[in-house]
Amino acid sequence: MIMFTNDYSEGCHPRILEILMATNLEQAVGYENDQFCNQARELIRLACQAPDADVHFFTGGTLTNLTVIAAALRPHQAVLSTVQGHIATNETGAIEATGHRVVTFPSDDGKMKPEIVRNAFERQRSEHVTQPKMVYISQSTELGTIYTKAELEALAQVCQECGFFLYMDGARLAYALAAVGNDLTLPDIARLCDAFYIGGNKCGALTGEAVVITNPILQQDFRHIMKQNGALTAKGRLLGIQFIGLFEDDLYFKIGKKAVDQAMMIKQACLQKGYGFRVDSPTNMQFPIMPTAVIAKLREKYSFGGLTRIDENHSAVRIVTSWATKEEDTQAFCADILALTEV
Amino acid sequence: MIMFTNDYSEGCHPRILEILMATNLEQAVGYENDQFCNQARELIRLACQAPDADVHFFTGGTLTNLTVIAAALRPHQAVLSTVQGHIATNETGAIEATGHRVVTFPSDDGKMKPEIVRNAFERQRSEHVTQPKMVYISQSTELGTIYTKAELEALAQVCQECGFFLYMDGARLAYALAAVGNDLTLPDIARLCDAFYIGGNKCGALTGEAVVITNPILQQDFRHIMKQNGALTAKGRLLGIQFIGLFEDDLYFKIGKKAVDQAMMIKQACLQKGYGFRVDSPTNMQFPIMPTAVIAKLREKYSFGGLTRIDENHSAVRIVTSWATKEEDTQAFCADILALTEV
Amino acid sequence: MIMFTNDYSEGCHPRILEILMATNLEQAVGYENDQFCNQARELIRLACQAPDADVHFFTGGTLTNLTVIAAALRPHQAVLSTVQGHIATNETGAIEATGHRVVTFPSDDGKMKPEIVRNAFERQRSEHVTQPKMVYISQSTELGTIYTKAELEALAQVCQECGFFLYMDGARLAYALAAVGNDLTLPDIARLCDAFYIGGNKCGALTGEAVVITNPILQQDFRHIMKQNGALTAKGRLLGIQFIGLFEDDLYFKIGKKAVDQAMMIKQACLQKGYGFRVDSPTNMQFPIMPTAVIAKLREKYSFGGLTRIDENHSAVRIVTSWATKEEDTQAFCADILALTEV
Amino acid sequence: MIMFTNDYSEGCHPRILEILMATNLEQAVGYENDQFCNQARELIRLACQAPDADVHFFTGGTLTNLTVIAAALRPHQAVLSTVQGHIATNETGAIEATGHRVVTFPSDDGKMKPEIVRNAFERQRSEHVTQPKMVYISQSTELGTIYTKAELEALAQVCQECGFFLYMDGARLAYALAAVGNDLTLPDIARLCDAFYIGGNKCGALTGEAVVITNPILQQDFRHIMKQNGALTAKGRLLGIQFIGLFEDDLYFKIGKKAVDQAMMIKQACLQKGYGFRVDSPTNMQFPIMPTAVIAKLREKYSFGGLTRIDENHSAVRIVTSWATKEEDTQAFCADILALTEV
Repeated sequence: MIMFTNDYSEGCHPRILEILMATNLEQAVGYENDQFCNQARELIRLACQAPDADVHFFTGGTLTNLTVIAAALRPHQAVLSTVQGHIATNETGAIEATGHRVVTFPSDDGKMKPEIVRNAFERQRSEHVTQPKMVYISQSTELGTIYTKAELEALAQVCQECGFFLYMDGARLAYALAAVGNDLTLPDIARLCDAFYIGGNKCGALTGEAVVITNPILQQDFRHIMKQNGALTAKGRLLGIQFIGLFEDDLYFKIGKKAVDQAMMIKQACLQKGYGFRVDSPTNMQFPIMPTAVIAKLREKYSFGGLTRIDENHSAVRIVTSWATKEEDTQAFCADILALTEV
Repeated sequence: MIMFTNDYSEGCHPRILEILMATNLEQAVGYENDQFCNQARELIRLACQAPDADVHFFTGGTLTNLTVIAAALRPHQAVLSTVQGHIATNETGAIEATGHRVVTFPSDDGKMKPEIVRNAFERQRSEHVTQPKMVYISQSTELGTIYTKAELEALAQVCQECGFFLYMDGARLAYALAAVGNDLTLPDIARLCDAFYIGGNKCGALTGEAVVITNPILQQDFRHIMKQNGALTAKGRLLGIQFIGLFEDDLYFKIGKKAVDQAMMIKQACLQKGYGFRVDSPTNMQFPIMPTAVIAKLREKYSFGGLTRIDENHSAVRIVTSWATKEEDTQAFCADILALTEV
Repeated sequence: MIMFTNDYSEGCHPRILEILMATNLEQAVGYENDQFCNQARELIRLACQAPDADVHFFTGGTLTNLTVIAAALRPHQAVLSTVQGHIATNETGAIEATGHRVVTFPSDDGKMKPEIVRNAFERQRSEHVTQPKMVYISQSTELGTIYTKAELEALAQVCQECGFFLYMDGARLAYALAAVGNDLTLPDIARLCDAFYIGGNKCGALTGEAVVITNPILQQDFRHIMKQNGALTAKGRLLGIQFIGLFEDDLYFKIGKKAVDQAMMIKQACLQKGYGFRVDSPTNMQFPIMPTAVIAKLREKYSFGGLTRIDENHSAVRIVTSWATKEEDTQAFCADILALTEV
Repeated sequence: MIMFTNDYSEGCHPRILEILMATNLEQAVGYENDQFCNQARELIRLACQAPDADVHFFTGGTLTNLTVIAAALRPHQAVLSTVQGHIATNETGAIEATGHRVVTFPSDDGKMKPEIVRNAFERQRSEHVTQPKMVYISQSTELGTIYTKAELEALAQVCQECGFFLYMDGARLAYALAAVGNDLTLPDIARLCDAFYIGGNKCGALTGEAVVITNPILQQDFRHIMKQNGALTAKGRLLGIQFIGLFEDDLYFKIGKKAVDQAMMIKQACLQKGYGFRVDSPTNMQFPIMPTAVIAKLREKYSFGGLTRIDENHSAVRIVTSWATKEEDTQAFCADILALTEV
């Protein structure tokens, strides 16, 4: 069975293993104060052109999101998200467990819109309702779509006007940066967001996410709140090494590109068969709508998820490529898509 | 500078790196449902002689402690600990952040006593005070001491009588199991505690702790609460592999033994010099009381911490060996201790 | 200005003041263990035909809701509500502040439907999402509608099948019990709900709500959780006296009836003018849709709220009668409604 | 049985009942925005000589404490208290339930000392421990003692230097202000504390505490956090009226004086008998040490609490007078104390 289920099915990029091996018995201090974390911080600040940013490392996305949000909000404040947002759909109420409401808004393409943010600000009536204070977005979104530079600028603008923090979940940032048509760079993101994280778990690391905090207000005592949430990693070296590997020689960008290239091959195969898509995605996640019989047949050899019934004979699926997807697997998958015909 | 500061200064035991390398591109499902976690679970259940235990993997000790405690307690319930307990001293209020009070009791040797537990139970007066429901202990303790089998049985007995959960933080369990005079086995611990964790971070793993839950009440929906706290690791394979490495061929016990052997060499050197100790520790952490001048001299070549003033000319220090401590470093350290004389 | 804005604009029913005066210097123990609370408990248990129910007194509805919900749920569990539910719309994230998500569902009439509850149960996928455990409903609802006996039985049935608690917010229960066409009695409610509260603040008390808990699971240590949330009232006597007043001589039912009668007079006046309604309400809250000009004119003499734009020339308003509404004020209001004509 | 158990055994001062009666059917808006709350606010600001202070009303002390503390602290911050502090001993972990640790310090007389505060500030080591940010004190303390003006100035000074908020729990403030030898005025307290509350529940009100917030940082969005904690009272008029009654014609000061006068009579009787005291209290709470036999005899006619064993034949008790204590009861009590002789 070949997996197109997600982008965290394999270990890590071999380059990271090399560094782990080479440095294994070097002694280091704990809790992300080590030489590896510091080197990774410098690489990330450089890539973001953000010399004053604080960079912290986490083991996972949910832990990252809950820590950033808990650190940013006063008790009565809420975070705004689309209904598809990971904090709204897949974190078992992690944000609420820190005491805060996630206020959700429908979105066709998984992207938050400036007018929704502005409305939320203007409709704050009184002390009887939660006070919006942060906007949560994902890049790429949970539907594989991406914010353009103009879109992110517009969001940042409205957030600034409303006094809201703008926070980007970059679990799949490598694939967004490499997306077809993307015009948004890491320095743009660092400039426009108050905080964001550069995903490692889904982008080639054994484990790890790197939070970049540019807003000085959010920087204050952040390590206290990490520790309180069990997020300050004793053996931070492990996380530092991941990001040294990913940010030396532009590896992060290269592996994103490789994954997107293969997703585009699959997209092309689907288009060639005349299949529609739930959403037009330029990234490593594709949501083609296929005949049920074709899906069943493909599933004999390939695993993928996201099955959503469209009509009696069709369903949408979620196909995900990654840094580790083998080109021959993609080719075989495309060939099978092209060969299969609805019964 | 040679570090005797703590037991998490290096990467991991080379055996773990080998498995990481060998399995790196095997595909696996996420969130600790993979083949590696399952294999590690079986090894741990076997080592604990606890076939019905649930085993879950975490990236760090604070995250483990807060998740187990949050899962176990109703809102008004509290956890009992010695004043030295890690949850009381070094977790930035992580337990309180989940809503629960940590009630602390003085202890000369870092160990919780049955009569303290019973008193806490009997002194529950009313709804105006928190209700004790769990006893937190560490093995080995934060002072390097260990519970004997008889002591743990007595604690388990009183906990059962009071309706309290008994939870053991095994951050340094490898060193406790290998301690001089230890008579407590993993199966004993699994039998006597409702839940405990087998520490990896300080005992040879790149990262990871393994929680063993034997009480069915605590098993219920535990993965939900892990996920909610950001503790369910997407790439669980990394954690599974650590514990495969540690529990194949009794590695966990061997590295514990090696560290304790070296701590004993250091202890002997100190005894030979006539130095006293804050506490008599049979494990990898030693707290000798040395002349200030000797400490200063040693610190030119070795790093260690825990400096606590005893009198005008003496301080206690904390010296920690680990799975990775090189025997030649220990020998050099002992030689220097023996050679140095108070000015 | 005569207020039809809400049902808590006045002090309390004169009978309650009489008891306050008569008992003022009687000494009593604190924290709701006094003779007045005990007498009120007995009256309420009798009215509910629930001799084994626990009855507790609170000062307000939000405090009641957050305490009951916090007491009932484990950390990862959520409460289900309509989008209109008070816990979703008007409590500043009070439930989330206790760590729990409020999962909301659209509803035309403000009532929760059994199929929504069943769907929520069946769609529980995994530990990545919150686990529904409680259904929150209001009687009467925030739109003034009421559950019939058959509807509440159906909800209770599905909750039992799903293992969910059914909790009713009875802030306006007096008006629901007196509603036109109501067939649901206090004993029915006590039999069908795991917990509910009998509203006093909006139904003639100076302050106070009375929680009735029939499910023994929810009874356990409830006073601890009240105290923890600041809800155990030192001078419980004040609350006990309110409910003695309300439940002696069926006062609670009489004042509900009086308020509904007057709401019906206003409803009739609106119907006579051909005005539509946002929802067909048989209780003390009416939501007529009026010409904007009429609204403006009425507001010169009467205050009321809930202005919701319907079209260019019409808005819905919320008109509320209460135990204290003077009949002459209602008559004047009706006369003005009938007299006013759209410009 | 005559109660000297506490200061909340009776209803309220008759003057308050008069105002309740006189205003009962006046209509008022809800949630403490009414004319009564506003008038009470003005009276309190005037008494405190604090025209810019925010004044909010609560139904009870625990609810007040948890709301003020939750509003003031970021997640990793802690509040400092003596071991006797009400938040440490009698609130069922209410502060921890909002996520914050209460750090306690021993105190012979129940009073916090400036050097303890300074030490706590200076010993903040790292992100591994909670960060102190607020000092909680009670006036009068739980042992009946009071801070002098010089002592409060010293505490305020050290808090300012450390960047800590100083918060005073004034549950028994009327009795502190009337204490023998007191030199601290309401304007002093308003000037020196960032926030404090003027207790009503124990000082003559049916229910109610009035928070005075002078620090603008703590004023921000405070009503949101009140509402979130269920502390914004729908029928705020009830609370406003209490404080109109208490602060018109200096009633608050007069009833404090009356209670202290009677406590002094009891103290004199004890001294005359040669009884010692646990602590020298100048307020309405006295802690005499009496022969066990005398205590048993007194308890046939009087109720009082706080029984603490001193030696085989003696215990300390807690005797409390209040605004409502009848002078003839005090005289009878004193006569009985004087008449009784140890068997």
